[in-house]
Amino acid sequence: MARDLGHSCHALSFDYGQRHRVEIDAAQRVARQLGAAEHRIVSLDIGWMGASALTDSTIPVPRAPTEGIPITYVPARNTIFLAIALGWAEVLGAGDIFIGVNALDYSGYPDCRPEFIRAFQALADLATREGVEGRGFRINAPLVAMTKAEIIRTGMKLGVDYGQTLSCYAPDPMGRACGECDSCRLRAQAFAAAGVADPTRYQGD
Amino acid sequence: MARDLGHSCHALSFDYGQRHRVEIDAAQRVARQLGAAEHRIVSLDIGWMGASALTDSTIPVPRAPTEGIPITYVPARNTIFLAIALGWAEVLGAGDIFIGVNALDYSGYPDCRPEFIRAFQALADLATREGVEGRGFRINAPLVAMTKAEIIRTGMKLGVDYGQTLSCYAPDPMGRACGECDSCRLRAQAFAAAGVADPTRYQGD
Repeated sequence: MARDLGHSCHALSFDYGQRHRVEIDAAQRVARQLGAAEHRIVSLDIGWMGASALTDSTIPVPRAPTEGIPITYVPARNTIFLAIALGWAEVLGAGDIFIGVNALDYSGYPDCRPEFIRAFQALADLATREGVEGRGFRINAPLVAMTKAEIIRTGMKLGVDYGQTLSCYAPDPMGRACGECDSCRLRAQAFAAAGVADPTRYQGD
Repeated sequence: MARDLGHSCHALSFDYGQRHRVEIDAAQRVARQLGAAEHRIVSLDIGWMGASALTDSTIPVPRAPTEGIPITYVPARNTIFLAIALGWAEVLGAGDIFIGVNALDYSGYPDCRPEFIRAFQALADLATREGVEGRGFRINAPLVAMTKAEIIRTGMKLGVDYGQTLSCYAPDPMGRACGECDSCRLRAQAFAAAGVADPTRYQGD
């Protein structure tokens, strides 16, 4: 969507000790296919914090829906991601930061909500030289109010190869999805609702 | 100051490719002397951003005052530091985060201002489980409105051994200060204004 708006895209992924680290390989494939100007993988030493099923291998990823904020919540994760993106954007001279959070049929993460994005936008202009002396930053979250089905349809229109993308929290080493975690369930429902054949590779296929 | 308020202190330092990395050794000595419950050093992979004299060894640290936001500004640095502190605080169940920024006689860094701290405070409660379901966070910046001389005097009262602390941006490998950078000048003026003998070890001493 950023590219479609005419932006030259400098993509950013994080290796933060997530158990679904194969998502980084998927991100590299997608960035290459869609012609990103650059794709950086930043190592982030936050796995020691534990407390999340995504970074602590002793906490299992739930295979059925749970109430409230799920155990896959990683404390302050999107704040940390956006803070590093902000630093890089300032160095690049880029005024627009895009993040793919989604609040409508999301899994209950506080840092995927529009009010979080607005608060970070306010922070960004106070935190930086560009905010004080320049034109400041826009934090764009174009997916935030879309349904997952709308996201699938929009991606199809823009040439996303969903066979190359990964949503699963507990993929096998070959990058095949479990089909049972929150993220897999929401993704499968979205393909069905969008009327698009699901190209996801599932474990056991 | 946090300890004096009765807090058990979990200290956090960052190895972010700063050329004055010996400040981490100083932080470890001070944390130990003052009885921190724990002291974590987090490696932060942001040196590749460059653009600052503190992380890019090809940009010299200025030895004389400059106008505006100085070249030692590191893009989004305190935002990144606070974001990681926020994640750890949430895991610890700690409601109070302390940061030693100072805006009164500071060197022009946007992310040392009270309005930055307030914006981060607003963000913290929107970004986290603790903010949504619990009592939220307080971002404390007790030094923000103090003069450097007041900071020296307060530290003396609380038992800080300033011979163990480091402010210099361009120390030698033994941790001796250059005496000429912004940070050294402000520190030396503060000792003079506080009427306290300066215990700093300078290069050439």
